[in-house]
Amino acid sequence: MAWRRIERLTFSDLNNLVVVLVRPRNPLNIGAAARAMTNFGARRLRVVNPYRLAFREAKSAIGASTVLQEAEEYESVVRAVGDCSLVVGTTAVRNRSLDQPLKTLGQDSGQLVRSELEGGPVALLFGSEKIGLTNHDLSHCHWLLTIPTHPSNISMNLGQAVAVCLYELARNTRHEAPAESVELATAAKAEQIAEILLESLRISGYVKPGTDKMFEKKARQLILRMRLETYDAKLLLGMVRQILWKLNHSGNG
Amino acid sequence: MAWRRIERLTFSDLNNLVVVLVRPRNPLNIGAAARAMTNFGARRLRVVNPYRLAFREAKSAIGASTVLQEAEEYESVVRAVGDCSLVVGTTAVRNRSLDQPLKTLGQDSGQLVRSELEGGPVALLFGSEKIGLTNHDLSHCHWLLTIPTHPSNISMNLGQAVAVCLYELARNTRHEAPAESVELATAAKAEQIAEILLESLRISGYVKPGTDKMFEKKARQLILRMRLETYDAKLLLGMVRQILWKLNHSGNG
Repeated sequence: MAWRRIERLTFSDLNNLVVVLVRPRNPLNIGAAARAMTNFGARRLRVVNPYRLAFREAKSAIGASTVLQEAEEYESVVRAVGDCSLVVGTTAVRNRSLDQPLKTLGQDSGQLVRSELEGGPVALLFGSEKIGLTNHDLSHCHWLLTIPTHPSNISMNLGQAVAVCLYELARNTRHEAPAESVELATAAKAEQIAEILLESLRISGYVKPGTDKMFEKKARQLILRMRLETYDAKLLLGMVRQILWKLNHSGNG
Repeated sequence: MAWRRIERLTFSDLNNLVVVLVRPRNPLNIGAAARAMTNFGARRLRVVNPYRLAFREAKSAIGASTVLQEAEEYESVVRAVGDCSLVVGTTAVRNRSLDQPLKTLGQDSGQLVRSELEGGPVALLFGSEKIGLTNHDLSHCHWLLTIPTHPSNISMNLGQAVAVCLYELARNTRHEAPAESVELATAAKAEQIAEILLESLRISGYVKPGTDKMFEKKARQLILRMRLETYDAKLLLGMVRQILWKLNHSGNG
């Protein structure tokens, strides 16, 4: 049976999430972060001490989203996260030693953030493209979050890192996709198809004399293994019927 | 307690994943997709019919990754996915009605893809920035995948969409039950069967003049939905070949 529509999952509410970009340099990345926010229902963007030109350029870009237009500028991390009850810094870790607990982005850390979001604003910090968050920036964080990347390249593009984090945070864990239900064809319908296929194969010379029994089983098993849905069985039956009709008639044509 | 190091999760192997960008226009996006691939351990990038300049620009960009340098160019989707046993198309859905099963990116769909990856190449298709994948592109897919986005903006940036999908696919699921393993037919084999079936239907008069395109899609989708194992595909191909041969020769007999 064809699928005609999707039931959109109920969405975890990211209204209280504050995305903080610390010293972003590239206006394209600021725009990309804002775009990912609109994709996942986050609205509050704050930018700390941006290269002024980059910020102005991003804000004035054609098609800049409301998120970007309403983005706020702060002079320091401490001010940007002032109203947040939880401050989480993202980091690729590298070889530094970290003083804060480090969690890997995933279901558990996502759930931690979501629980906090129910109570009030949560800040999620992203550092600059070149060096990420400094140890000083990290000192404002309750804990740190790292995206599980492949060891061969742990450094993510800023906009992509924001997208991946928000995807995980917006994940609704209560409503995982239900198993698909399809109506499968009956064995009788499969048998009809197999019989007509077999007859076509006989006429075509595929089935050699004396091998009939073997091919009967072969054709039936083949059709059964297809696990045809009702619609497909009807479609296939119509096709093989027409082909058989032609095979029966064209010899005399 | 100070955290000195992170235990990297063992990583789901994306060596067999083939990321296919269909008609990408912006070299930055091709580069961004390649970068996300290196972040999540995917290596095989194919680009279908790219704006030549965009592709060349992306490949020659300073710091272009090995993934990008080794990216392959194809003239059509059908060729780009020829060696893949599962072809998944990404789509933001919008208001079109879709003929293929649609799954939401998440644990279940991720697990489905991972199971297939253990057996061989799996293609993940991404459409162009403006219009995504066309219905014709989608007709080559076994099923479709949509990223669960907020209704206010369902259209994601290409590089970000790739990042989010690969993050989910690379997710470590060591504790999930292993999937049954059967060797499935490649898309190229399915296409061969579909073509011969279609030709037989034309000769039989099942396909009325002017409905060729529609039936081409119908036949292809029917065969793809069968999820034929390698052995069955070979068997079915032999059958339809013989039937077509007979149809071609009996008229003159």
